[in-house]
Amino acid sequence: MEITQETIELQKRQIEEALDQGRIHEAIALWLKLHPADRAEVFDELDDEHQRILLTHLDVSTLADLLEELDDEEALEAAEEISTDRLADVLDEMEPDEAADLLGDMPPERASEALAEMEDADEVLPLLGYPDETAGGLMTTTYIALRRYTTVAQAIDFLRQVSDVTEIPYYLYVVDGARRLIGVVDLRDLIKADPDTVMEDLMDPEVISVEAGTDQEEVARIMAKYDLAAIPVVDSKGRLIGVITYDDIVDVLESEATEDIYHLANVSDEDLDPESPLTEQLKGRLPWLYLNTVTALFASWVISRFESIIAQAAVLALFQSVVAGQGGNAASQNVAMTVRALALGKLTPKALLRVLARQFVIGLSLGIAVGSVVGISVYFWRGNLYLSLVLGLALLGNLSVGSVVGVLVPLVLQSLGVDPALASSILVTAVTDSSGFFIFLSLAAHFLKFIRAG
Amino acid sequence: MEITQETIELQKRQIEEALDQGRIHEAIALWLKLHPADRAEVFDELDDEHQRILLTHLDVSTLADLLEELDDEEALEAAEEISTDRLADVLDEMEPDEAADLLGDMPPERASEALAEMEDADEVLPLLGYPDETAGGLMTTTYIALRRYTTVAQAIDFLRQVSDVTEIPYYLYVVDGARRLIGVVDLRDLIKADPDTVMEDLMDPEVISVEAGTDQEEVARIMAKYDLAAIPVVDSKGRLIGVITYDDIVDVLESEATEDIYHLANVSDEDLDPESPLTEQLKGRLPWLYLNTVTALFASWVISRFESIIAQAAVLALFQSVVAGQGGNAASQNVAMTVRALALGKLTPKALLRVLARQFVIGLSLGIAVGSVVGISVYFWRGNLYLSLVLGLALLGNLSVGSVVGVLVPLVLQSLGVDPALASSILVTAVTDSSGFFIFLSLAAHFLKFIRAG
Repeated sequence: MEITQETIELQKRQIEEALDQGRIHEAIALWLKLHPADRAEVFDELDDEHQRILLTHLDVSTLADLLEELDDEEALEAAEEISTDRLADVLDEMEPDEAADLLGDMPPERASEALAEMEDADEVLPLLGYPDETAGGLMTTTYIALRRYTTVAQAIDFLRQVSDVTEIPYYLYVVDGARRLIGVVDLRDLIKADPDTVMEDLMDPEVISVEAGTDQEEVARIMAKYDLAAIPVVDSKGRLIGVITYDDIVDVLESEATEDIYHLANVSDEDLDPESPLTEQLKGRLPWLYLNTVTALFASWVISRFESIIAQAAVLALFQSVVAGQGGNAASQNVAMTVRALALGKLTPKALLRVLARQFVIGLSLGIAVGSVVGISVYFWRGNLYLSLVLGLALLGNLSVGSVVGVLVPLVLQSLGVDPALASSILVTAVTDSSGFFIFLSLAAHFLKFIRAG
Repeated sequence: MEITQETIELQKRQIEEALDQGRIHEAIALWLKLHPADRAEVFDELDDEHQRILLTHLDVSTLADLLEELDDEEALEAAEEISTDRLADVLDEMEPDEAADLLGDMPPERASEALAEMEDADEVLPLLGYPDETAGGLMTTTYIALRRYTTVAQAIDFLRQVSDVTEIPYYLYVVDGARRLIGVVDLRDLIKADPDTVMEDLMDPEVISVEAGTDQEEVARIMAKYDLAAIPVVDSKGRLIGVITYDDIVDVLESEATEDIYHLANVSDEDLDPESPLTEQLKGRLPWLYLNTVTALFASWVISRFESIIAQAAVLALFQSVVAGQGGNAASQNVAMTVRALALGKLTPKALLRVLARQFVIGLSLGIAVGSVVGISVYFWRGNLYLSLVLGLALLGNLSVGSVVGVLVPLVLQSLGVDPALASSILVTAVTDSSGFFIFLSLAAHFLKFIRAG
């Protein structure tokens, strides 16, 4: 079965038509035929009135599935339309980690009311204390932990008691008397094993785990590296407190990549896309443009120091931006490589000096390559030897500056605990613009009489 | 167990020391204690001589694990050091998809020789025909397909016959007499089921699958959306030909994100990082800088049309770059949002007109916000009302241009089948630089006598 965007679009229109004509049960029946992930997609695209109709007519378990699949923001909006005691039932049905996320996003007062009315609040409460972007914030408490002398037959009996077995990870965990994690059993090995085998003989005692406070990016990196379908989360004493599954990690990888791409382009809200509303766009974009305004006006001030030089040789105004821009381009290349290498764990701030030295040489090489081509091209255009020499040398200088700054800034930000993607590109452009104008115009000032004569 | 970068680094130094002192078996014993993923990491960081010693002393199955874990490029280099008949044994031990990837990267002649000596060449041969970045290129042939009347007990017997059960996916697939995919069984449901249940009663007949030619980015999008630990691959007649597992998808998500980030920053080789060698860096970066040179010189030519204006009012040279740069910033924000929305399947080229209209309004709003602040700031600095008006208006114009171009270019490239991340930023900057200089300087030319008087 291939599900295409077109078939989903078609279903959506049929559902909207049925809702418009008051055929609510038909609309719901059509909607329920969709995969839960597609239900959420269609629901999200319905208008508010249609959404309200669905929310009041769906049963508790369908609502729970829907809230699990919606994005955080959308789930919060939907939850606002549901009465508190119904919401408590829905939260009971949701997976504990999803319920905890939603409760954490709700206004504190409403969250307390809902928690008070929940039956399984004790499954969710321990999850509420962990920040969203840590292992503790990602983990679920729906998993099976066994003791070392449990047999395969007993383990399978445990699995039979789980109401929806597809909600538990593909591993069983083995703990000691103090709940400390001592082993992991892959369900594939469990299936093959003799019913009388005990967990101790079946488990892999070398369990890779993370602590609750570990950053979600680091969790994703570890799971990706070791090809894990799930990773157990332990507290500071090594006691098992939760499990993170591969589907959470896929979301983390996508949102971390979006975050890096947005931050590099100076957009601050990772939920922003070209169809987001005006006010959201202004909030996510304008602060960065203002910050860039400050650095751009500083660069203007650098140029203003050479205003009389430009008045004597207006030709300089043609090429100053080439020097600034190419330095910025070389720097952006390095910022992207450095930010990505840091995100994938391929580079540590400790490598700073070695990497800087290498990038200085690379910047020089790029500078020679670009500077000579631009210098020669401009000589054929303007026929001014000194202009070409100054331009070529300035490019050599600014590409070297850009190359070094482009790797220095993200590495230093990372070692200060700041997200290197967030601030790097503005800081780096501030440097390469100002240094580009300064190098080019001060060299030009030095050779001004030859440039004017050329 | 938490594995830290420090403990791996320590192990590496001990291994190097043992190798230097000729204690080869001790070195290998230390290395074998590591997780296969860490073995590959340490191997990759050893110098060529040490790598050669390991390659000649490892047994076939350890070599197979190593080649599976190494990056494509590194695996290819290691394979070059191994004699062809030994390599054939290693390829037999490797997972078919990994073996096919390696064979596809090898010189054709050597690949044929190795294939001829392999015992299980028939598992690998069907995989060689699919391009690397498609579902066919990602899939493995190590999976279990059953018929609809197979019982749970029989299925478990099948699993017992698999030598390393952890190499198969967490699902069994059900096919009809023509090998057409008709259902999927989650291993978690298999464990719970009564031994006499037949697959037909246990399977989910609504199997989400992809065709062999589907692009890997689309495969990743589908698996992420539907939270699948594995997805079956079918041919054009719906016959099951392979399975893709979540660990492949994690790699795809990471490399697609790297590719987008690099392309947006005009780096063309996704294996590049700040520690890559000089020649690699030049190859991955220089072509882009040259392309940027062409567009930058075009922008210089635009300025040259106004050279006499600048000669009369050198102050213009201070602010022309602010207009060009801020237009470029607004455009980059939109390029990032559009490229990411396209990659995550949140936007289709069909939405073009609606999105363009919205972004034109947003560009105007950003232009008013930035133009007024810059205009007023510069008025306080230079006290020249007409200069400030021209600057503010030019910013309004160029931010509108940038905002529209920033969403237009990637959407058009995508609908032409070109990677929007690859070419967008250069095309867009070419436009916003030239339009920025043109709008600002032609407005200034119009009000020149007031600017000079002001």
